[in-house]
Amino acid sequence: MSLTILGCHSATPRTFAHPTSQYLEINNRRFLIDCGEGTQVQLRKYKIKFSTIGHIFISHLHGDHFFGLIGLISTFGLLNRKNDLHIYAPTGLKEIILLQLKTSNSWPQFDIIFHELTSSKSELIFEDDKMEVFTIPLEHRVYTNGYLFKEKVGERKLNINAIKKYSEIEICDYQNLKDGKDFVKANGQLITNEQLTFNPNKPLSYAFCSDTVYKPEITSIIKKVDLLYHESTFLKDRQETAVRTKHSTAEEAAKIAKEAKVGQLILGHYSSRYEDLNLFKKEAETVFDNVTLAKEGKTIKIDSKIPDELIIAHQN
Amino acid sequence: MSLTILGCHSATPRTFAHPTSQYLEINNRRFLIDCGEGTQVQLRKYKIKFSTIGHIFISHLHGDHFFGLIGLISTFGLLNRKNDLHIYAPTGLKEIILLQLKTSNSWPQFDIIFHELTSSKSELIFEDDKMEVFTIPLEHRVYTNGYLFKEKVGERKLNINAIKKYSEIEICDYQNLKDGKDFVKANGQLITNEQLTFNPNKPLSYAFCSDTVYKPEITSIIKKVDLLYHESTFLKDRQETAVRTKHSTAEEAAKIAKEAKVGQLILGHYSSRYEDLNLFKKEAETVFDNVTLAKEGKTIKIDSKIPDELIIAHQN
Repeated sequence: MSLTILGCHSATPRTFAHPTSQYLEINNRRFLIDCGEGTQVQLRKYKIKFSTIGHIFISHLHGDHFFGLIGLISTFGLLNRKNDLHIYAPTGLKEIILLQLKTSNSWPQFDIIFHELTSSKSELIFEDDKMEVFTIPLEHRVYTNGYLFKEKVGERKLNINAIKKYSEIEICDYQNLKDGKDFVKANGQLITNEQLTFNPNKPLSYAFCSDTVYKPEITSIIKKVDLLYHESTFLKDRQETAVRTKHSTAEEAAKIAKEAKVGQLILGHYSSRYEDLNLFKKEAETVFDNVTLAKEGKTIKIDSKIPDELIIAHQN
Repeated sequence: MSLTILGCHSATPRTFAHPTSQYLEINNRRFLIDCGEGTQVQLRKYKIKFSTIGHIFISHLHGDHFFGLIGLISTFGLLNRKNDLHIYAPTGLKEIILLQLKTSNSWPQFDIIFHELTSSKSELIFEDDKMEVFTIPLEHRVYTNGYLFKEKVGERKLNINAIKKYSEIEICDYQNLKDGKDFVKANGQLITNEQLTFNPNKPLSYAFCSDTVYKPEITSIIKKVDLLYHESTFLKDRQETAVRTKHSTAEEAAKIAKEAKVGQLILGHYSSRYEDLNLFKKEAETVFDNVTLAKEGKTIKIDSKIPDELIIAHQN
């Protein structure tokens, strides 16, 4: 799993401070999360092959989270994209995008499938054989969702040393073993799957939470994710402003991370009022240990977690 | 008069190739012409005090000429702009902008006055005491206008040496002289204005023409402008593509410049197919002498033209 920060500042784009956008590669799926103005330029700058992005998730309809989408779609059109593009966003974005394509008389050759979100409860919005994506209902000045990206449990790992002891087991049986099935010998003797395989890799998960006031109710949804991005527009010196504008402080983001027992916390969506971003890290670290600052162009990689017994087997 | 190129490439924004936008200062008026994605970042990059822009002119509703407008308007809102903003554009842009402001629930505190253009003839769309702006009807795949910015004739210049000969002329009479009035002495003797003043500065003018197929009919509108920007998306090696996509070649842009007897030609809106932009200059120079290549961040200055007799007076 690899997350690249394309922009992590709040509100107005500046030369070195782009609004929110993230590119997530997980299990060979490529997702774009939010798309502030200039996102297509950031994708080029960081040499991301963005033509393979199939699904775009927009948290809410404030400009710093979606003004770059129409430009990206137009560029897909100019690049002769053929594959479907799925867009998950609050109701309203579809009308905005279609009006602009109609007015500029530039319908692309590919289909755009809008998934308009309205629910205030967490729901499954994307699923294939390897991944699930859920909404994380947030609370901001307009209807807002975070997104939870979860790998499904993968195949069991073959224990080749154990398998070799049984000459009856052939290569054509391997997929059944990976699928968790026991092996039955010709004489009817059963060899349980646990004797022949290791547990699968632990599925990875990423939760994106922006923009939102401090909302501890989300911790049950994002419990134990490997990686959590949680907005921290302010430090606690501006707690009142955070509440009024429905944003979070670095301390509050860390409280969410701690309560949800996540692996790593990424902070971002910094207000332009702050020059020294290290203050965000320091404030969060008073509550939670593993804190990273989002920074344009930074890529955070999380390796698949190999099950403990496989590590032990390798060591022996 | 000073023109700053914020972007001069066609179609999709890239890291070092921004779509069309220009900032024009003329007679203390500040105008923005076209507003491709990322224009607000370019304005910051080139340290332009963009809060004083009062009038924005959009040539046509292809994305590379207007996708940056909604972001700029939002930023004006965040910066607490109070002054009216006038937008001159084809019908359709108003609906696009208002829909986005409504959906994101972020109405700015200032008024936006849309001037929706529909005419296929040149018309006066802006006038104050010092300036006039006219449309230049162009021919592209969608309804498109260029814009002609013209200074009005200014005040006459006082000929101080001549005035000093007449002790009856007091400072409170100067404005009348600047306005072209003759002076009448107490004894009824008339001193003609020509004896006391020089001609005013020659008014400056700038014509912006993008995007368009070669359209010689516009030369009568832009006759003898000091500065002409004319798109040259292609070289003549792609004449056919130019005709089909309703764009111009560098040679055609130069023909317009020559026919209209303009002072200086600026080329731009280069297709990304070309790596060596100097080829555009070379091709145009086979037809017209004074050719400049638009380049991001380049500022082209034209000084007010001092009337000949004032230069002679200074030399004596």
